[in-house]
Amino acid sequence: MIRVIILGSGNVAWHLAKACSKAKDINMVQIWHRSPLSAEFDALQVKTTSLFSKLEEADIYLMAVNDTAISNLSESMPKVEGIVVHTSGNTSIQALSAKNRRGVFYPLQTFSKKAAVNFQEVPVCLEAEDAEDIQLLTKVAQKLSRHYEVIDSDQRKTLHLAAVIVNNLVNHLYYQAHELCREKELPFALLQPLIQETARKITTISPYDAQTGPARRGDHATLQSQLGSLTEPPLQKLYLTLTQSILKTYGRKEL
Amino acid sequence: MIRVIILGSGNVAWHLAKACSKAKDINMVQIWHRSPLSAEFDALQVKTTSLFSKLEEADIYLMAVNDTAISNLSESMPKVEGIVVHTSGNTSIQALSAKNRRGVFYPLQTFSKKAAVNFQEVPVCLEAEDAEDIQLLTKVAQKLSRHYEVIDSDQRKTLHLAAVIVNNLVNHLYYQAHELCREKELPFALLQPLIQETARKITTISPYDAQTGPARRGDHATLQSQLGSLTEPPLQKLYLTLTQSILKTYGRKEL
Repeated sequence: MIRVIILGSGNVAWHLAKACSKAKDINMVQIWHRSPLSAEFDALQVKTTSLFSKLEEADIYLMAVNDTAISNLSESMPKVEGIVVHTSGNTSIQALSAKNRRGVFYPLQTFSKKAAVNFQEVPVCLEAEDAEDIQLLTKVAQKLSRHYEVIDSDQRKTLHLAAVIVNNLVNHLYYQAHELCREKELPFALLQPLIQETARKITTISPYDAQTGPARRGDHATLQSQLGSLTEPPLQKLYLTLTQSILKTYGRKEL
Repeated sequence: MIRVIILGSGNVAWHLAKACSKAKDINMVQIWHRSPLSAEFDALQVKTTSLFSKLEEADIYLMAVNDTAISNLSESMPKVEGIVVHTSGNTSIQALSAKNRRGVFYPLQTFSKKAAVNFQEVPVCLEAEDAEDIQLLTKVAQKLSRHYEVIDSDQRKTLHLAAVIVNNLVNHLYYQAHELCREKELPFALLQPLIQETARKITTISPYDAQTGPARRGDHATLQSQLGSLTEPPLQKLYLTLTQSILKTYGRKEL
């Protein structure tokens, strides 16, 4: 049994706590929280505390708190036997206090309390400072998920940026398309099969090969016609910037 | 039985021909083509011709050719009893010769010959010049797909632009993320669950509500740190343009 304590009360803390409670060979010892825990946590029937003086012993302390809180929290928590890991994509392992063994356990998925997540399908990116700790984190990752990868802080920073691109920036393009539909009283549902197919396609071919459309073809007539129909400057700028980048990628003449 | 003739030999022609051949109550009369037909078409066992003089009679002539060929082709084809429709998102119904009844049958999906498409799930956007023709196109659409919508040329133009955004522009962001991963020797597969979940999420909540991340939160520290780590000017520009647009959308201070 690997003993786990989770520190935090947000979405990531909730999904980790749920996954740990269900996992075989993991003993979900305690949840430490500063903000009040939402009602969902009750169902897990895990001991909770807000006091560091009541913190129990564990093999791994999973810190699922805001990026900006990691450093201070790891300083103010007591010296423990186990390893202290944060779960942030964009924070170096060095942000954690050196008084404890330290590591990173970064689950690469978007979490909200409402949406169910199958943690088995969430890739977990691991980092630690020695081989023994890597082994411990690997064991925990394997019990929670089918996918894990050992990467360093520099790689994780890039991965987090890539995650922002395919999640936050892509979602903003969905939003822009949604707005266009709303303005012309078109049901956004018309675009759903295309959205899903675009995401599905790159599971079998590379995004480079999957690219289609007027910019890939270098079809300047269609591009100019579409640009001309964009009356909103922000969307016009988005369309132009992305289109130029596609033209460049495929060696086409830029607009 | 509704008699259909398809004009064209590309991806859209192939998927339409396949769907028509399988559909109940549709008689796939003939395929007219100028370029040679690829081997896949053989399996359909449909009559083919390259001569307008051999064109048979049908209720609907589905023209699945390049946007730029629509006008000339509809001029050079003979006067027929049936309705002549094009399948383009970005072309007005007016591009078709007025000598025949005319309409639009625009299937909103990305087609390649390799990838199988369940046409039943492809939304079809219809346009015609009188109620009787709308009725005929509706009948055909219902036999091929579970989703159809009657929209005008102006709406279709916007819809096609929205389709370019959620397909071509989104795919380019996948490509940028793929490149970042490649540079740091990270498996792109790590991002797949996030990509799929981002697309899935907006089937149940609006893209506006689905937005997460540093720009939505107005977290300038993370945004500046990510911008700083982008060494490639094209990606830096993409990131900045999209980020500014998200900040603006949620009333946050711009960078």
